[in-house]
Amino acid sequence: MSSSLPATGQQVREWCRTGKWNSPTAGLAPGYVQANLVILPVDFAYDFLLFCQRNPKPCPLLEVLDKGSSRTLATSITADIQTDLPKYRIFRDGILDQEVENITNFWREDLVSFLIGCSFTFDAALQASGIPVRHEQEKRNVPMYRTNIPCKSAGVFKGPMVVSMRPMQPSDGLRACQITGKFPRVHGAPIHIGNPLEIGIQDLTKPDYGEAVTIHSSESPVFWACGVTPQAVAVNSKIPFLITHSPGHMLVTDWKDQDLEGEERVL
Amino acid sequence: MSSSLPATGQQVREWCRTGKWNSPTAGLAPGYVQANLVILPVDFAYDFLLFCQRNPKPCPLLEVLDKGSSRTLATSITADIQTDLPKYRIFRDGILDQEVENITNFWREDLVSFLIGCSFTFDAALQASGIPVRHEQEKRNVPMYRTNIPCKSAGVFKGPMVVSMRPMQPSDGLRACQITGKFPRVHGAPIHIGNPLEIGIQDLTKPDYGEAVTIHSSESPVFWACGVTPQAVAVNSKIPFLITHSPGHMLVTDWKDQDLEGEERVL
Repeated sequence: MSSSLPATGQQVREWCRTGKWNSPTAGLAPGYVQANLVILPVDFAYDFLLFCQRNPKPCPLLEVLDKGSSRTLATSITADIQTDLPKYRIFRDGILDQEVENITNFWREDLVSFLIGCSFTFDAALQASGIPVRHEQEKRNVPMYRTNIPCKSAGVFKGPMVVSMRPMQPSDGLRACQITGKFPRVHGAPIHIGNPLEIGIQDLTKPDYGEAVTIHSSESPVFWACGVTPQAVAVNSKIPFLITHSPGHMLVTDWKDQDLEGEERVL
Repeated sequence: MSSSLPATGQQVREWCRTGKWNSPTAGLAPGYVQANLVILPVDFAYDFLLFCQRNPKPCPLLEVLDKGSSRTLATSITADIQTDLPKYRIFRDGILDQEVENITNFWREDLVSFLIGCSFTFDAALQASGIPVRHEQEKRNVPMYRTNIPCKSAGVFKGPMVVSMRPMQPSDGLRACQITGKFPRVHGAPIHIGNPLEIGIQDLTKPDYGEAVTIHSSESPVFWACGVTPQAVAVNSKIPFLITHSPGHMLVTDWKDQDLEGEERVL
């Protein structure tokens, strides 16, 4: 089957749009940048944009759509975020209301959509450099944890940073710092290596999001700021209406991973 | 006299606050990051923030202050932008109304202040690497030009990119690309090298802002996105009320130039 899996962002989006794909997007269209999605009413858009500006490590913005528009301009010229992700979550007053495969029935002219970088991009770069990525090896979702590191707040949006964790040999951790540091728009270099207690994580076997992975005795946990942070913060703010992608069910864009290396794509 | 010039950002700000300094800040407190200032009513703040997000090369945000607050939190914990710059410009409906040495009489609770990176930081890095910076050699303001490169618009904010130009040997131009590429929050790598006509500049001897500098026959002009862009765009938008710093009269922060290398200061 894998030979028939979508090979480009365009193909993944068509499969989603036509109901042929409603599963996680990890491994689809290798090399294409995938994005987290947060959609909220324009009344909250300034504070949310400011939150992202103030916290670029967990919230690296790839694109902000015009009010009322579901069409991307920068990350793709053909994507429609009402239909082109496999699965969405609708929140009301901070409570998950339902999970749906498109959001055409929920669209409103006052909605503003934010696309935020995702660590899938640097996972590929790590693997290309010969650094094993445990959650990929074990075919699990990456383990993610709430920390005691406060984000800088903006209006109603406040809360702790969420991090993703990849266990690796300490020497690989230092190489990973070099490699991912080249990708500031997908969280950049790690924010911590070693003792999880120092950033408020009690138990690595019990992630707050995603799934636990094996950590060998010779390995150190390496922690990166995670794109779940802005979603968690938006949900915690209990704003009346909020749409996000379902975890792992991302927008696959037309950008290639290497476009995010350094500042290439900022123009 | 130079030995008595302020040596830290804190000292410069005190001199400004107490009326002892109302001149350009170039050369003051070497090694401290200086910032462009744009202040506008909150009704326009979302579109302006979005403009900066969409155009990070000319508009690299260092900090956005809370509505109604003139106190910085990130770039300094002691600065007050009502008093701590040497000179300000007040615009009404896009027309320069007056130039003042503090803005306490103009402050309003609905104002939002944006601090934007300035190329003084990478000029220092270029010189430290042995690349001569012509406008520093000739003690002039850097020459700046409107280009035919459109910025991505956001609401009322639209217009062409403004660039700064430094003439140098072509081999130094390539080195300068490497060096300034490490400073994405102060415009990063150049956007063009060589023929100015290709980006819509007719005559290098007639800059739109700043002053012309000597270009030797063996040199190429090297162009960087410039922090005058967001000011020019804000003025051109003819919004009812706008405050900026006077050209060259910047806020000197407590950040050091090296803090802006790579992504160090994004946390």
